[in-house]
Amino acid sequence: MRPIALLTDFGLSDPYAGQMKGVLTARAPQAIVQDISHGVQPFQVGQAAFFLAASVPHFPDSTVFVCVVDPGVGTKRRIILAKQRNRYFLAPDNGLLVFALHGEPFDAWDVSHHTERASSTFHGRDVFAPLAAELANGEAPGKLGKLIDSNELVRSEAATPTLLDETQAGRMVQGHVLHIDRFGNVILSLLPGELYQRMSGAPEMETPCSGPAAPRMVRTYGELQRGELGLLLGSQGFLELAVNQGSAADLLEIKLGDIFNIGMPD
Amino acid sequence: MRPIALLTDFGLSDPYAGQMKGVLTARAPQAIVQDISHGVQPFQVGQAAFFLAASVPHFPDSTVFVCVVDPGVGTKRRIILAKQRNRYFLAPDNGLLVFALHGEPFDAWDVSHHTERASSTFHGRDVFAPLAAELANGEAPGKLGKLIDSNELVRSEAATPTLLDETQAGRMVQGHVLHIDRFGNVILSLLPGELYQRMSGAPEMETPCSGPAAPRMVRTYGELQRGELGLLLGSQGFLELAVNQGSAADLLEIKLGDIFNIGMPD
Amino acid sequence: MRPIALLTDFGLSDPYAGQMKGVLTARAPQAIVQDISHGVQPFQVGQAAFFLAASVPHFPDSTVFVCVVDPGVGTKRRIILAKQRNRYFLAPDNGLLVFALHGEPFDAWDVSHHTERASSTFHGRDVFAPLAAELANGEAPGKLGKLIDSNELVRSEAATPTLLDETQAGRMVQGHVLHIDRFGNVILSLLPGELYQRMSGAPEMETPCSGPAAPRMVRTYGELQRGELGLLLGSQGFLELAVNQGSAADLLEIKLGDIFNIGMPD
Repeated sequence: MRPIALLTDFGLSDPYAGQMKGVLTARAPQAIVQDISHGVQPFQVGQAAFFLAASVPHFPDSTVFVCVVDPGVGTKRRIILAKQRNRYFLAPDNGLLVFALHGEPFDAWDVSHHTERASSTFHGRDVFAPLAAELANGEAPGKLGKLIDSNELVRSEAATPTLLDETQAGRMVQGHVLHIDRFGNVILSLLPGELYQRMSGAPEMETPCSGPAAPRMVRTYGELQRGELGLLLGSQGFLELAVNQGSAADLLEIKLGDIFNIGMPD
Repeated sequence: MRPIALLTDFGLSDPYAGQMKGVLTARAPQAIVQDISHGVQPFQVGQAAFFLAASVPHFPDSTVFVCVVDPGVGTKRRIILAKQRNRYFLAPDNGLLVFALHGEPFDAWDVSHHTERASSTFHGRDVFAPLAAELANGEAPGKLGKLIDSNELVRSEAATPTLLDETQAGRMVQGHVLHIDRFGNVILSLLPGELYQRMSGAPEMETPCSGPAAPRMVRTYGELQRGELGLLLGSQGFLELAVNQGSAADLLEIKLGDIFNIGMPD
Repeated sequence: MRPIALLTDFGLSDPYAGQMKGVLTARAPQAIVQDISHGVQPFQVGQAAFFLAASVPHFPDSTVFVCVVDPGVGTKRRIILAKQRNRYFLAPDNGLLVFALHGEPFDAWDVSHHTERASSTFHGRDVFAPLAAELANGEAPGKLGKLIDSNELVRSEAATPTLLDETQAGRMVQGHVLHIDRFGNVILSLLPGELYQRMSGAPEMETPCSGPAAPRMVRTYGELQRGELGLLLGSQGFLELAVNQGSAADLLEIKLGDIFNIGMPD
C-alpha cells in the first residue's frame, strides 16, 4: 500500500484538509497519510512547487504526492497525473510539478475528465483524493487517464531556478524569493551550481525595498555573528539568506515573490 | 476498528490536541485518527456545528466523531453520545450536533457521569478521548451511558439554516454567517431548497457594515469576472458568497456570526 | 513497534515537520506518528520543556519523544538520548528534557556524532528523525551513542518550577510564565506542593506590566464570575491564571517568559 503525502494552500482553520483525509480514510484505509504542509500561501503555485521539490527526496519512493494549489479551479485547466521512478504526482497543470520533476524522465496522464463527477468548487476532496486513493490501492495510471506528451506540461516562471555560477565574470543574475520560513530565513530560487564550493566572499545583492546588501557566504548558521546576514546552501537544497538568531526577511524587508539581483564582486 | 475524527477549538499552538491523540494512541492504538480541524474559533459552537455537518458525509460510515467546543466546561452541561446509522458522535450538549444529525433518526445517551473521573478543566483529553477509544474498540453505547429522548438535545440558534426558497414572492429572509474561510469565501446559513435550480439573477442583500449588495447567482467561481461578487452553492453544502480571485469577506466587511437579510428582487 | 511523538518549534506553514514525517514514514512505516505540537515559539526551550512534561503522561509508555527546539543548531551543543521507564527522549542538550525527566532516575546517551552524516542546518529531519525511526524499530540505545552521566545534562533556568508552599509565612516567591494558551490562560512555573489543598484566598501577585493583582484561588473555571481572575491547578499540572469567558493574559498584559512575584497575604 503506497503512502499518500498532501500539499495544499487550504490552511488548517477550515475543514478542507480534514475532508480530504475523510475521503482517503474511507477509500484507502490502509494507506499512511502524511501532510507535507497545508500552509502554502493562497494560490502561490511557485511556493508550492518549491515545497514539493524540497520534500520529495525525504518521502518513501512509492509515495503518492497530492498537490492542490489551484487558482484555476472551475476553469478548463487540466489535472495531471505524473509518474517518475516509482512515485506518483497529482496536481493541476499550472507549473506546480515542474521543480520536482525536473532533470529526470517521467510519464504524464491527463485525468481531467474525473472532474465530471465532482462538485465544481472542491476538486481537492472530490477529484484529487479519490484518485490518490485509487493509486494507493494499486490502480494503474493508464486506467485513470490518457497518456500525454510530458513536454506539454505548463511551466511556471515563478518556479524556475537560477545557478549561482552564472554570477561569475561580474554578471548580475536575477532570482526571486521562493519562500520565507517561520524563522525569517529567505529561500531564493538560486541553486549552487558546480563552482559553489570554490566561491567565497560577499555577493552584491539588490532587493526591491532595502537597497543593496552583501550577505557573507558561509557553510552554516554558526559561522555568522549574532545579527549578521549570511548566504548559505540550506537544508531545502536552495541558497538561503539567514541571520544568526534573527530574521533575514525583516532585515531586508523582503516578501514572498520579490525579484532580486545578485552578482559576485570582481 | 472504527476510525476517529477530531473537531475542536483548541488550535495547534497548544499541546491540547496532541494530548488527546496521546490518549487515543494509548487506548485505541489500531484506530485511524484524523483531524477535521482544530481551528474552530474559541467557543464558536455554531461554526463547529457547520464544520461537522459539512464533513460527516466524507468520512467512513463507521467513524467516531469527537467534537469539543465547550464554553460550558466545568459547569453542569451534559455530555452526549449520539448514534446515527453506523456513526457515533461525542459532544457537549450545546447544539454542536444539531446540524449534523438533522433530518434522520438517531439515538442519544447521556454520558456526563464520566466527568467524575476527570480533571475538571480538560474534558477533551480526560473524558471525550477515553470514551472515543472505547467506542472505536467496539464498546456498546448502552454500556457508556443512559439512553435519553433524542428530542431533548439542546438546540443552537446560531446553527439553524434557512431555505433560499423562502425569499420567493418578494420576502426578505434572515440568515447568519457560519464561517469565513481562508480564501475569504463567506459561508451562509442558507440552503438551496427545491426552487434553487430555477432561480437566477442577483438577490438583494443587506449586511451590518457594508450596506446593500447584489451578488450574482452563479454555478461556479469561473463564471465570475475577476473581482465580481457571486452567490453559489459551495462545496460545503451551503450557499456561499465568493469573489473570483478575491475575498468576499473583505469586500463586504463581513465577520463570523454576522446577521444578514436577503431577498429576490421582484 | 513504538509510537513516535513530535514536538518542535517549526510551525506548520513550512514543509519542515512534513519532511520529518517523510523520513519516519520511509524508515519506520509501521510506527504511529503523532504531533504533540509544532507551535512552540521559535527557540523557546522553556516553553517546549513545559509542553513535553505536561504531555508525557498521556502518551503510551513505549513512546519515542522527539523534541527539536534548538537555538544551538550548527554549534557544538550535544544531542541527547534519554530513557526513563520504557520511554525514549531525543532532544538537543539545552534543558528541554529537564522538566519531563525530573524526579525519576533515567539513563542518557550522547548521540551527537550522528550529525556527521547530516545537513548542517536541519538536524530535525537528518539526525533526530532517523534516530527516532531506529528506536521505534527496536534498536538498543547503547548501539546509538555513548552512555553519559545523567547529572551532566544542561539545565534551563526557564524550566525550573517553584512550589506554592514556599509562599507560606508571608514570603514572596518568584516564578515565570511558561505558556499562554489560545484561550488566554496563563500557565505559571508554580506547582501546588503539599499545602495546596488547604490554601485559600487571593494571593498577592506582581507582574511586569499590570501592577498588583489578586487572583482568587479556585478549583474550577466554573467557580469564577464572568470576567473574574482566578488561580487554579490546571489540566497541565501547573498553576494557571484564568478568567471565566475571558483572557487572563490580556487582563494582566502578561507575555511568555515574564517574571512575576507571588505571596499569600498574612
